[in-house]
Amino acid sequence: MTRFSFSLTATDGAARTGVISTPRGDIRTPAFMPVGTAATVKAMMPDSVRATGADILLGNTYHLMLRPGAERIARLGGLHKFMNWDRPILTDSGGFQVMSLAELRKLTEKGVTFRSHIDGSKHELTPERSMEIQKLLGSDIVMCFDECPALPADDKRVAESMRLSMRWAQRSRDAFGDRPGHALFGIMQGGVTEHLRAESAEALTVIGFDGYAVGGLAVGEGQEAMFGVLDYAPAMLPTDKPRYLMGVGKPDDIVGAVKRGIDMMDCVLPSRSGRTGQAWTRRGQVNIKNARHADDPRPLDEDCSCPTCQGYSRAYLHHVFRAQEMISGMLLTWHNLHYYQEIMQGMRDAIAQGRFADWEVDFHRQREMGDIEKL
Amino acid sequence: MTRFSFSLTATDGAARTGVISTPRGDIRTPAFMPVGTAATVKAMMPDSVRATGADILLGNTYHLMLRPGAERIARLGGLHKFMNWDRPILTDSGGFQVMSLAELRKLTEKGVTFRSHIDGSKHELTPERSMEIQKLLGSDIVMCFDECPALPADDKRVAESMRLSMRWAQRSRDAFGDRPGHALFGIMQGGVTEHLRAESAEALTVIGFDGYAVGGLAVGEGQEAMFGVLDYAPAMLPTDKPRYLMGVGKPDDIVGAVKRGIDMMDCVLPSRSGRTGQAWTRRGQVNIKNARHADDPRPLDEDCSCPTCQGYSRAYLHHVFRAQEMISGMLLTWHNLHYYQEIMQGMRDAIAQGRFADWEVDFHRQREMGDIEKL
Repeated sequence: MTRFSFSLTATDGAARTGVISTPRGDIRTPAFMPVGTAATVKAMMPDSVRATGADILLGNTYHLMLRPGAERIARLGGLHKFMNWDRPILTDSGGFQVMSLAELRKLTEKGVTFRSHIDGSKHELTPERSMEIQKLLGSDIVMCFDECPALPADDKRVAESMRLSMRWAQRSRDAFGDRPGHALFGIMQGGVTEHLRAESAEALTVIGFDGYAVGGLAVGEGQEAMFGVLDYAPAMLPTDKPRYLMGVGKPDDIVGAVKRGIDMMDCVLPSRSGRTGQAWTRRGQVNIKNARHADDPRPLDEDCSCPTCQGYSRAYLHHVFRAQEMISGMLLTWHNLHYYQEIMQGMRDAIAQGRFADWEVDFHRQREMGDIEKL
Repeated sequence: MTRFSFSLTATDGAARTGVISTPRGDIRTPAFMPVGTAATVKAMMPDSVRATGADILLGNTYHLMLRPGAERIARLGGLHKFMNWDRPILTDSGGFQVMSLAELRKLTEKGVTFRSHIDGSKHELTPERSMEIQKLLGSDIVMCFDECPALPADDKRVAESMRLSMRWAQRSRDAFGDRPGHALFGIMQGGVTEHLRAESAEALTVIGFDGYAVGGLAVGEGQEAMFGVLDYAPAMLPTDKPRYLMGVGKPDDIVGAVKRGIDMMDCVLPSRSGRTGQAWTRRGQVNIKNARHADDPRPLDEDCSCPTCQGYSRAYLHHVFRAQEMISGMLLTWHNLHYYQEIMQGMRDAIAQGRFADWEVDFHRQREMGDIEKL
């Protein structure tokens, strides 16, 4: 059986490209992970997600533990079989979403108790229970249970929260045990304060993980502050392990993160945008509900090879969005996920060929050529 | 260029199998046409509709004329290009849906004026305008503009309506003109009254059409009354032209219609059911929202080869329906359309091999083996 491993194949400045090997297949890095919250990437069939170039999906522990339930998914053979996706799955720990979605939360040293936002039922999440749930789901990459304050927050609050997360990281590590072929990632916290990030990186490295996430970003601090942290934080983590930036982001966020040494990212943005009529393209965003598209025979992007751009005009996409037809979300999500994966492939190639800086200039130049909607 | 033609290859009792040839491809009969009301078969990609075995789709003139508009679709290259379906399309005349959906309808000898149910805008449909719209859409099989009373209705009302439809059939024929490769179908009316059906068939045959629909059924009369009409009506129509039963139906309606000499049918049922959690299978209906499916690892139908049954458990389908995920409608619609096309293929093979009666016995026997949900 293949064990979990990571090999870097090239670096270009701080940017890196490589391969994470798992028993369920390889993950080319830098990798973008589409989000399959409730055991489905919304509006997409798994085959279609794979066709966009995705090597790995993200599943949400919080949602799945509430509905349909982790024990139920385990009885049914695990999350991969349940949702018909046989490649790698990363699951978050549930911590972040408990804090953002659940009701009547109560945080203690032990963990968090809360009520479900779906039916009000009472639940508890601890490092130990999060490890158990992620094992029941059959996740390939398991995340430590952590806690994360919304930014801005003062250093005292950030430091206390980070230190709690580090104690939980040790408990997560202990509870995870030894599971060949499965990986456990630690999550660095510390907000936008460099010495707290350093303290967190040190604590995680001492415990030892198969990969390291930069947590606590994309929570309201803005791109400039995020890049400020990414200018130093990745270098605090072991070079030979994957680095994962959680919950990011827009295309230019992703490019800026890879430039600064990030290997993995996830975000609901391409799929959520697709369901609300927003398309992401090389030349900027297209809001398909605008009346100017009603008679436009052109595809979203004439140079895009996705099924949406190959088969449908902006006029059609405008029509089906206005008519509230399901195919609207299906086609726009497919395009958006395809575009995101195209960015990742472009970056992987550029890093491998030592031309990431030129690639980045070209990426921004195309976006600045003007609003694609007005061309 | 291929002209529109129909050739019967076998008959078995009143049941027939054959091929309708068009410049856009062959239609194997008996044929079931999925409904693509607003230029999309709801929840399906066109490739997926084709993969179920559909040779032809139905488009709704009433919906398309209101949104996005027939002239707009023509400017964009026609309905096939607009919706990315290059095989044959049949369009209805708009008459039936004006009567069931539009507001402030006013019926005269000339036609119908009405207000859109979408935005209240004022429109007129006449035989001439219906022919023009269907030409703008680029429909391969065009339906005569007709009028149809809801049943039950007295013979006087049915007769007057039928005779108006016959005058409109002549005007439709005149307005359609000569369009090689495109077909115009007449629509028989007359309710459940045999001599009115005979009068209608005679009027249509004198005018002469490329195919003949049995209209005015599936409007509330019930299966027994519908089969009563189908016991004599198809035989009143020319043997060498396709016979189309509009808006039918459930699987057993379809089998009973083919048994009585029908070649083509359409219905929203398999796609609409799919979006409301209803699956049709060889062994009866499955209501996927029932709690009994929550832990069921079996597919909807263990002998079904559709992607839904090959990849997903009832437990998964139950979960995504409850979570209101789009993939619920996508998977159930795919299964239902696949099952409908499987029935059609089964009937075509059975008729070709002279064993339709045995096939029909087996069809009913499987359904009567009991509620699939309780197995």
